[in-house]
Amino acid sequence: MARLVRVGGAQLGPIQPEDTRAQAVDRMIALLRQAAGHGCNLVVFPELALTTFFPRRIMQDPDEANVYCETTMPTPETKPLFDEAARLGIGFYLGYAELAEEAGRKLRYNTAILVNGEGQIVGKYRKVHLPGRAEPDPTGVTKNYEQRYFTPGNLGFPVFKAFGGVMGMALCNDRRWPETYRVMALQGVEMVMLGYNTGAVRWAAEGNRIVQMPSHLEMFHNHLSMQAGAYQNSTWVIGVAKAGCEDGEELMGGSCIIAPSGEIVALARTLGDELIVADCDLDAVKWGRETYFRFDVNRRIEHYGLIASQRGVIPPE
Amino acid sequence: MARLVRVGGAQLGPIQPEDTRAQAVDRMIALLRQAAGHGCNLVVFPELALTTFFPRRIMQDPDEANVYCETTMPTPETKPLFDEAARLGIGFYLGYAELAEEAGRKLRYNTAILVNGEGQIVGKYRKVHLPGRAEPDPTGVTKNYEQRYFTPGNLGFPVFKAFGGVMGMALCNDRRWPETYRVMALQGVEMVMLGYNTGAVRWAAEGNRIVQMPSHLEMFHNHLSMQAGAYQNSTWVIGVAKAGCEDGEELMGGSCIIAPSGEIVALARTLGDELIVADCDLDAVKWGRETYFRFDVNRRIEHYGLIASQRGVIPPE
Repeated sequence: MARLVRVGGAQLGPIQPEDTRAQAVDRMIALLRQAAGHGCNLVVFPELALTTFFPRRIMQDPDEANVYCETTMPTPETKPLFDEAARLGIGFYLGYAELAEEAGRKLRYNTAILVNGEGQIVGKYRKVHLPGRAEPDPTGVTKNYEQRYFTPGNLGFPVFKAFGGVMGMALCNDRRWPETYRVMALQGVEMVMLGYNTGAVRWAAEGNRIVQMPSHLEMFHNHLSMQAGAYQNSTWVIGVAKAGCEDGEELMGGSCIIAPSGEIVALARTLGDELIVADCDLDAVKWGRETYFRFDVNRRIEHYGLIASQRGVIPPE
Repeated sequence: MARLVRVGGAQLGPIQPEDTRAQAVDRMIALLRQAAGHGCNLVVFPELALTTFFPRRIMQDPDEANVYCETTMPTPETKPLFDEAARLGIGFYLGYAELAEEAGRKLRYNTAILVNGEGQIVGKYRKVHLPGRAEPDPTGVTKNYEQRYFTPGNLGFPVFKAFGGVMGMALCNDRRWPETYRVMALQGVEMVMLGYNTGAVRWAAEGNRIVQMPSHLEMFHNHLSMQAGAYQNSTWVIGVAKAGCEDGEELMGGSCIIAPSGEIVALARTLGDELIVADCDLDAVKWGRETYFRFDVNRRIEHYGLIASQRGVIPPE
């Protein structure tokens, strides 16, 4: 009695600053049709999939970023994606920049939504772990100013009953934080979808010098974090990149579908628009949960207090 | 200005039920002397390093396990290890079964201690995450009855200032739980030492059938968990096995020294007594903590509450 979801990971190649949302949507519709040819039920698109990854650039006035944001969903430009997905009976995860109005204030969130096979939005997530900086980096090595443009997500890590199982969402840097997966696992998550935009090379300031960090570590850390999250929480993880050279920055690919064993069962091999597919049996989460990871038997919350009560490091005297 | 600790991971081959503690100590002293030849400051021995891994067998009366336990440390049998280490100026981590008397009750703990270069015990840890079962397994696949013999550790995850840094300890199954590393990282840990005894093959009951699980996953999960713990907390992790065929059970080796990047920088290649060595620069923890993992800036404890407040899984209605 398998509970199969056939998942397509729809990696996107670069979206340049001059590219329109309509162009991005056209590419996503092409991937959606490929996914239909594979019999997919669910397609996962990247983070900020409608535009270039604008937080790599510093804009004097953060509100200039509003041109990259959506105030409603679907928008006129994304309506064709919703319509085609519904016509094909395919659900999807989509990352985009959201401009919300809350208590009279306009706030930007780095957001993902889950859309069911009938074209209805059934879940929303706002990125909790914003990387990068808010203020200009005097060393010049920073390629990420998400903290300048976005407010940290205020929805926690919700899960959603959909596609015959319990679905969760996360975005990019969230994958490096084990708390992300754990909070969803405690709510029974069976599949975590995660879009990302991540530089393939990284520079660091060491005193007065700028040094390149070993580039191979970027992909290693990408997969290590998601594989550990999958294994330690016995859940499927679908990680999908925007990849390639975008606005002068090399973004890594490496989109993957990870089984609850932590194994990568499907992997993208290019830096362009590419679909990866796997049959994800949601019942495969059970073995881990009935053996190693019986949370109710094995977790010792009486010793975990610091995790939720202390934000930074307090070393011993 | 590196803060170097030259660490020896002292993997042990099997210790059979008929082997004496004096024999085990002799083997550990031989490894200690090898480590001295490498100029090591600190040697990490496995979990339950003085005896066979007795919790693999079920004893009618759990108190029969007391013969495998120590009521004090050092004992007459381990005194030569303490003396030789002090003579060589080498500190060590040692796992053993502890029989403690607390509030008039005798309790067994799966314990590790940290001994400094002068032979003084400077830290103690009692295993928090006990795997296995307490009662006989009708399917016969269980090879671990730690929950029958041991009480869960009551010391939390303490850290200790020693060897010029902040040191932490864990044992075996603890490595699969991200909370283990995180609670220590929030206290500034720079090196986590962890001994283990882990089966190289695993069987599972599926209804009426007994099926073998893919054996390659055992080592993958061993390294995956420790590498993720190292990377996500930007700490050194030293994992040391008792390995080989012990009392009829195949134990995995794979002892390793893992850098704060998550990379394995030293790896055992045998299933016997074997020393691995690496220079561990405690200052290497800084880069991760100043870039990706600025806990004080990036952690969002307002969304982590479930981790410390809810033990088991509560799925959505």
